[in-house]
Amino acid sequence: MSESSHSEGITMSGGGVYSLATLGARHVIDAATPLVTDAIHSLPEASLAAGFTLSDMGTADAGTSLTMVAQAIEAARTRRPGIPVTIVYSDQPRNDFNALVANVHGLGPFETYLDRFDDVFPLVSGTSFYARIMPPESVHIGFSATAMHWLSAKICNISNHVQAVGAEGEELAAFRAQAHADWRRILHHRAAELKPGGKLVLINFARDEQGRYLGNTGGVNMFDTFNRIWLDFVAQNRITREEYQNMTLPQYYNTVEEFCAPLQDPDDPVYQAGLRLEHIDTRIVKCPFAESFAEHGDAARFADEYIPTIRTWNESIYYSGLSSARPEAERRQIIEDYYATYRDLVRTAPAGHGMDYVHAYMVISKQA
Amino acid sequence: MSESSHSEGITMSGGGVYSLATLGARHVIDAATPLVTDAIHSLPEASLAAGFTLSDMGTADAGTSLTMVAQAIEAARTRRPGIPVTIVYSDQPRNDFNALVANVHGLGPFETYLDRFDDVFPLVSGTSFYARIMPPESVHIGFSATAMHWLSAKICNISNHVQAVGAEGEELAAFRAQAHADWRRILHHRAAELKPGGKLVLINFARDEQGRYLGNTGGVNMFDTFNRIWLDFVAQNRITREEYQNMTLPQYYNTVEEFCAPLQDPDDPVYQAGLRLEHIDTRIVKCPFAESFAEHGDAARFADEYIPTIRTWNESIYYSGLSSARPEAERRQIIEDYYATYRDLVRTAPAGHGMDYVHAYMVISKQA
Repeated sequence: MSESSHSEGITMSGGGVYSLATLGARHVIDAATPLVTDAIHSLPEASLAAGFTLSDMGTADAGTSLTMVAQAIEAARTRRPGIPVTIVYSDQPRNDFNALVANVHGLGPFETYLDRFDDVFPLVSGTSFYARIMPPESVHIGFSATAMHWLSAKICNISNHVQAVGAEGEELAAFRAQAHADWRRILHHRAAELKPGGKLVLINFARDEQGRYLGNTGGVNMFDTFNRIWLDFVAQNRITREEYQNMTLPQYYNTVEEFCAPLQDPDDPVYQAGLRLEHIDTRIVKCPFAESFAEHGDAARFADEYIPTIRTWNESIYYSGLSSARPEAERRQIIEDYYATYRDLVRTAPAGHGMDYVHAYMVISKQA
Repeated sequence: MSESSHSEGITMSGGGVYSLATLGARHVIDAATPLVTDAIHSLPEASLAAGFTLSDMGTADAGTSLTMVAQAIEAARTRRPGIPVTIVYSDQPRNDFNALVANVHGLGPFETYLDRFDDVFPLVSGTSFYARIMPPESVHIGFSATAMHWLSAKICNISNHVQAVGAEGEELAAFRAQAHADWRRILHHRAAELKPGGKLVLINFARDEQGRYLGNTGGVNMFDTFNRIWLDFVAQNRITREEYQNMTLPQYYNTVEEFCAPLQDPDDPVYQAGLRLEHIDTRIVKCPFAESFAEHGDAARFADEYIPTIRTWNESIYYSGLSSARPEAERRQIIEDYYATYRDLVRTAPAGHGMDYVHAYMVISKQA
């Protein structure tokens, strides 16, 4: 389906593993929760006549946002006691929706707000944020965390790196152009879905004012490590150069300027659709596994905790980069070898490794 | 979760198998589609101002209703060209939602209406029809086919049969009381969800005016066959009597009178909530595999096609009836042996076997 055109092969880990392995992603959402509750408190009174609807886009298995959603329900009920609440969880159609529903309905490892609140209606959508998920003017709060760096398509392979942070020249320009178009497409769809006076709280990976980004905040550059290990695999003929290039991650980290541009240019269709920037700041949430290592000092434990958090989001792309001419077991083995190499590297020299989260926290309003 | 209290262990076959193996279930929905489109044509004009919402409850993997939904969208667009359409698919939280989303988004074996229509928003809910799935007054058409015979809980085991059609005395009375309470609970929740003037089109297994029901329309009684094979397994000590009794299917087939009662009694809370019976009839949709056998005459093929359609809906209950003290492989083997015995029985003496569908087709309106 073209309208749900997340690049094929991208899936977060299923079976509820995503939320368990991504403690940091949950910390990021917890840090953003006051922006959500403030946004709810600022909604026009008239918009809350029939109910309150929050859309959580790119939610994976919904585990990381359960606490945020509970606080959003409380905020809406403060505005209007007993207001019926609809929570719409969405992700691309190959997401693990069974894990998502299990987590929300209390069949997974988490407590669910459904045990605390009546008249809350969780709904799920398999439509990606590159299409319209909800009907026109039906959403009060659109939320998304750590999701919109995934581009709608991989515009090209990157010759000498696995991520656009290492791209140069024409390849970088192509990724940048794709990212700018995708960001506008995301916002334009959201403008249609939002009620007048509704708000977006979007927490996205960013390249901050000091050039820092995910896993690159002064220590070892995580993406360069990804890349170096794969280049070693090429040098050792364990994978081909073509496979390496096919592993290019379809991601881009916008700067603050890039995030703001369509919201501040009166000629931009996004601006003309009524979206306005209310707030943006960048924040770092420390890698919980590196922080924990600083206390316990056990390099093996650090490596064993850190590698799974990386695997949740890049394993499926690396795997799909491998030639389908290889037997599946061989492809699986290469992936295992890759993460084992990375794990050994961290065990041997743990200092500086880690995946600090660098996000832009944005609040965007739709003119009432 | 008490509010989604479908008996544990009940799941339809996953992975898209349900819709492929249940051709008959699709024929039933096709037969009901004119009731849906007529209901849409009768909706109050004012209710269609902001959009149209159809709720498909107990949808399993959504494959059997794709054509009905497409015709519902067309009917709504005839009423109001370009009207945004929301389709809410729901089933109990252990349903295979990955298969459901795949089917709706065109990643499964079926064509999807999403390729034909813009501004259609499919949503999914893991809330069972024994709770409120949608916010108050948000649904135009509530649809359900071949789902509401599943009781909210198994009130007791049946001593000498696997289904209430073979129950007697106090056990029958207990099932009947449970079914009556469940039917009222289902309708009461739907009354809250429906917009004024909205309609329910409910297609449910029934015991018809001549006492016929699923798999019992004049030939071999399917449920008696189920029961006889399990009793043989008890006699052969392949399962215990306790396991046999735990296999009791938590189902009940209402008569027309039982379906109508809460909609015609002015003292009933369902009636008082504004629900009124507009239409009820009973129909038989012939077993497609028995019909096909009448043409091809190949008993082995008939058996191979017929048994899977049964497995889709009763395998999980039989399996969960087996003692957890048995190793899983042993339990699996008993289940395989059971269906193999049934298959051999059909192969040897195919005449009269088959699963004719006996349904009540109801249209219920909520007073405007």
